[in-house]
Amino acid sequence: MKKRRIPVVARILEANERVAEENRRRLAAAGVRAFNLISGPGAGKTTLLEATLPRLKGRVRAGVVVGDVDTTRDGERIAALGVPVVQITTRAMGGTCHLEAAAVARALDRIDLSSLDLLFLENVGNLVCPAAFDLGEKSKVTLLSVAEGEDKPIKYPQAFRVASLAVITKIDLVGPLGFDLGALRENLRKVHPRLPVLELSARTGEGMENWIEWLVRG
Amino acid sequence: MKKRRIPVVARILEANERVAEENRRRLAAAGVRAFNLISGPGAGKTTLLEATLPRLKGRVRAGVVVGDVDTTRDGERIAALGVPVVQITTRAMGGTCHLEAAAVARALDRIDLSSLDLLFLENVGNLVCPAAFDLGEKSKVTLLSVAEGEDKPIKYPQAFRVASLAVITKIDLVGPLGFDLGALRENLRKVHPRLPVLELSARTGEGMENWIEWLVRG
Repeated sequence: MKKRRIPVVARILEANERVAEENRRRLAAAGVRAFNLISGPGAGKTTLLEATLPRLKGRVRAGVVVGDVDTTRDGERIAALGVPVVQITTRAMGGTCHLEAAAVARALDRIDLSSLDLLFLENVGNLVCPAAFDLGEKSKVTLLSVAEGEDKPIKYPQAFRVASLAVITKIDLVGPLGFDLGALRENLRKVHPRLPVLELSARTGEGMENWIEWLVRG
Repeated sequence: MKKRRIPVVARILEANERVAEENRRRLAAAGVRAFNLISGPGAGKTTLLEATLPRLKGRVRAGVVVGDVDTTRDGERIAALGVPVVQITTRAMGGTCHLEAAAVARALDRIDLSSLDLLFLENVGNLVCPAAFDLGEKSKVTLLSVAEGEDKPIKYPQAFRVASLAVITKIDLVGPLGFDLGALRENLRKVHPRLPVLELSARTGEGMENWIEWLVRG
């Protein structure tokens, strides 16, 4: 089974890469910086965007492409903030466990890129598959909630190796969980020694300024 | 790309199904009940097993097959309990995001099934892909931590539709999170109305007896 499978996977990744490069050119031509947000389910991608978008208002013009297996729930949460949003549900694509460049290309057709400076591509909640699929983004941002445990970077290394930034979310739970932030930082260093790391809580607002500055500075 | 891809996926799933049926026959012949544990990263599969295995001692003889993309960390945690364990890392299979029946078949070769009543198949941390791959288990148990949010059953419905039991983990965090257990139960009912649900904390021990009874009764 494996012998048959690997060439197919390589072809899919090559086809994806070509479309991703088209997306990248198109975004660059429009002056839009795109960030591919990757995490496991429930790390808080949508909640972070809900806390981020109002703070960006008046500084940069942001839009969102939201990917989910099913439901348009996340897209509705973002739309409620009055921000341009396109929802992709991968159910029609066989419940694909990640966004692909072709789906993002179709989403870009439905957004006025000239009205944006920044575009978030909120991936499907999955810490494995999205790491392999370039969407044409400027950079990947991988989120991890402290509720997921200190060892996740070494167990899911690829998602952190391909990232330009790691965001540790829900740090208001460090106390209740007895979470060891030092151990997490050490595990991040093991898989990607120079990866910048931000720690924040979208709920309390702690650490949000650094994230906003990172986004605004580009 | 999609047109080319779907028949390939169907062939992979069919091949997997054949091997899964062989695994199922082999496990049944040995009188071993196997449970396929599915969850996103950090929902607490390994921690639940660490709390479960000592409580099963003297009642049922349990072993574990552990799947991870990388590292043998989870396998080492289980081995420390003096329980038969086989670790599968999917890195050699291209970093596959789920266990497949063929890998489990090879793991079964390395375990003395006659010494077991029960076998846990701890899947890769992923709430999407493992739901599509039968491993030959008696039933699938899908875990969800309260830190992941109330909406996850409707966002990742397949993992709950294929399950025989849902286990809500980390309920000691309900208070600190302001988590709405009622909303989660309602969302579980929407995707799988008759799915039994257990709520527990492996850390405090709350709810563990019901889980142990479920396992022992079969």
